[in-house]
Amino acid sequence: MSLVLPTYDDVARAAVTLKGVAHRTPVMTSDTADRLTGAKLFFKCENLQRMGAFKFRGGYNAIANLSPEQRRAGVLTYSSGNHAQAIALAGRLLGVATTIIMPHDAPVAKKAATEGYGATVVSYDRYQEDREDVARALQQKTGMVIIPPYDHLHVIAGQGTAAKELLEDVGELDYLLVCLGGGGLLAGSALSAAVLSPKCKVYGVEPEAGNDGQQSFRKGEVVRIEPPRSIADGALTLYLGKLTFGVIQQKVTDILTVTDTQLVDTMKFFGERMKIIVEPTGCLAAAAVMHGALAVPPGARVGVILSGGNVDLKSYASFITQA
Amino acid sequence: MSLVLPTYDDVARAAVTLKGVAHRTPVMTSDTADRLTGAKLFFKCENLQRMGAFKFRGGYNAIANLSPEQRRAGVLTYSSGNHAQAIALAGRLLGVATTIIMPHDAPVAKKAATEGYGATVVSYDRYQEDREDVARALQQKTGMVIIPPYDHLHVIAGQGTAAKELLEDVGELDYLLVCLGGGGLLAGSALSAAVLSPKCKVYGVEPEAGNDGQQSFRKGEVVRIEPPRSIADGALTLYLGKLTFGVIQQKVTDILTVTDTQLVDTMKFFGERMKIIVEPTGCLAAAAVMHGALAVPPGARVGVILSGGNVDLKSYASFITQA
Repeated sequence: MSLVLPTYDDVARAAVTLKGVAHRTPVMTSDTADRLTGAKLFFKCENLQRMGAFKFRGGYNAIANLSPEQRRAGVLTYSSGNHAQAIALAGRLLGVATTIIMPHDAPVAKKAATEGYGATVVSYDRYQEDREDVARALQQKTGMVIIPPYDHLHVIAGQGTAAKELLEDVGELDYLLVCLGGGGLLAGSALSAAVLSPKCKVYGVEPEAGNDGQQSFRKGEVVRIEPPRSIADGALTLYLGKLTFGVIQQKVTDILTVTDTQLVDTMKFFGERMKIIVEPTGCLAAAAVMHGALAVPPGARVGVILSGGNVDLKSYASFITQA
Repeated sequence: MSLVLPTYDDVARAAVTLKGVAHRTPVMTSDTADRLTGAKLFFKCENLQRMGAFKFRGGYNAIANLSPEQRRAGVLTYSSGNHAQAIALAGRLLGVATTIIMPHDAPVAKKAATEGYGATVVSYDRYQEDREDVARALQQKTGMVIIPPYDHLHVIAGQGTAAKELLEDVGELDYLLVCLGGGGLLAGSALSAAVLSPKCKVYGVEPEAGNDGQQSFRKGEVVRIEPPRSIADGALTLYLGKLTFGVIQQKVTDILTVTDTQLVDTMKFFGERMKIIVEPTGCLAAAAVMHGALAVPPGARVGVILSGGNVDLKSYASFITQA
């Protein structure tokens, strides 16, 4: 069975759907970052997006594309992170009931934030059960529609609108760096870059400890890894999706990795010099260019997507005070 | 001798001078802030300005307005805060030598940051000497031009460009809240509001412990206070300027105060919900509307200027982890 991969037309349609709903987030620049790298960096601030991450784009676009019957049935997903809040908020805005399956030991704050947006949270035992099995069982019982975190055409298309805005705002780029978890943001960004800046090289960036994307990209097939340990909690996915991998194979130049220490240094840079809070996962792309995983020629125009800012203040305080 | 007060024309000219040099900072909104206040809040993010504060606008505009001879003579100022860095950076950009008079016990980080922008730092003993006397003595010896932190026509005009941009971006407002130290930002903002949104009520906001502006406004003359204690270290001025007070008397509705506890709560709100770092002084205006110093009717359109983000990360970590 051949897969129908998303295209730039899907991204362009998502942009229409999201107009006036998602924030058109600012693109920031920093003289200091440019001096440190020798390049001209453009930071697309999805940490300043609604609910604090790019995930709102894909979640909203996916629910907006449901039929009236599907909307009445409600939406179901599994996530303990930003996708959960994205679906919850998008559901509230579109008047669609949402149910989120979360591990029973998910942080209380994340559960509360998701419920705060009006979603129903269902717990499962992550040592005994698989979240996708739990979702399918609940779907069969209730008829709700599953919107998975990344391997979904309208989710990928929505995520691609961030890079589309960046390229519209600053013009063509030589490089575009994107953090990589399940691949929704990277695949969507690559679709936008291929059309709006065809010579731009697009890189995904993963935590070194969780480089399933890099392994998959180099092997030419989706590789599954054991649960990795990294502070980049939004990029601990064990394998890419079929759709995301399909796009990434076609459109992406390479996959790079960075260390947790580099992520902390990058978080501190954003706090100290640019006055913005970026979560560890959100620092992946920036860390790659600021700490040498990707060497760029002097004066290169480099787009960097800061994917999110959802880190609780206690953890953030502890990161920025690390020596 | 009658004072020549700045006018909106001076602000408009400053906007031309600053175009392409100062960042046109983003205006952020927050559903949560709107829900908490019942109003529609527009946050003008001068914490995301170059060198981290609105002060860049006034400093650059003042140096740009010097004659060629004055530029050759160099610029002198006194400040241990954001004005020092503003003058240092503006001098570097305009090729003008700058000297900053700082107390001998100023934080090492601030001295280093100012020197990092290329300024010469001269220390004085703040227990034995008056900074303005030190500046005048140095001026007589060297012929350098003094650009004071706020009581200066081109400084006030430059600061007014932030409110001008805000009103251009979001349209007319019912209220505009501005933090108040020496009054440069408040006076400039009031000039812009009077022309671009004539029905808008403009309020200054000070730390409760340092309410010289409120006392002066109500008494009708500049009142000097003893050095106050507050975490709002950018608003510890002891008295308003002659020019700033002149404009404030004519154009401002009232001066409000907030407590340090309210400032900390507001800093935490910005970090937790909006993912931006705002220094304590920069939270003054927002704290007034979010903690009730100003009660606004439901649905009111309220502009709030976030004046800066220059707080060192160790202090910031300690603020955001306060109970």
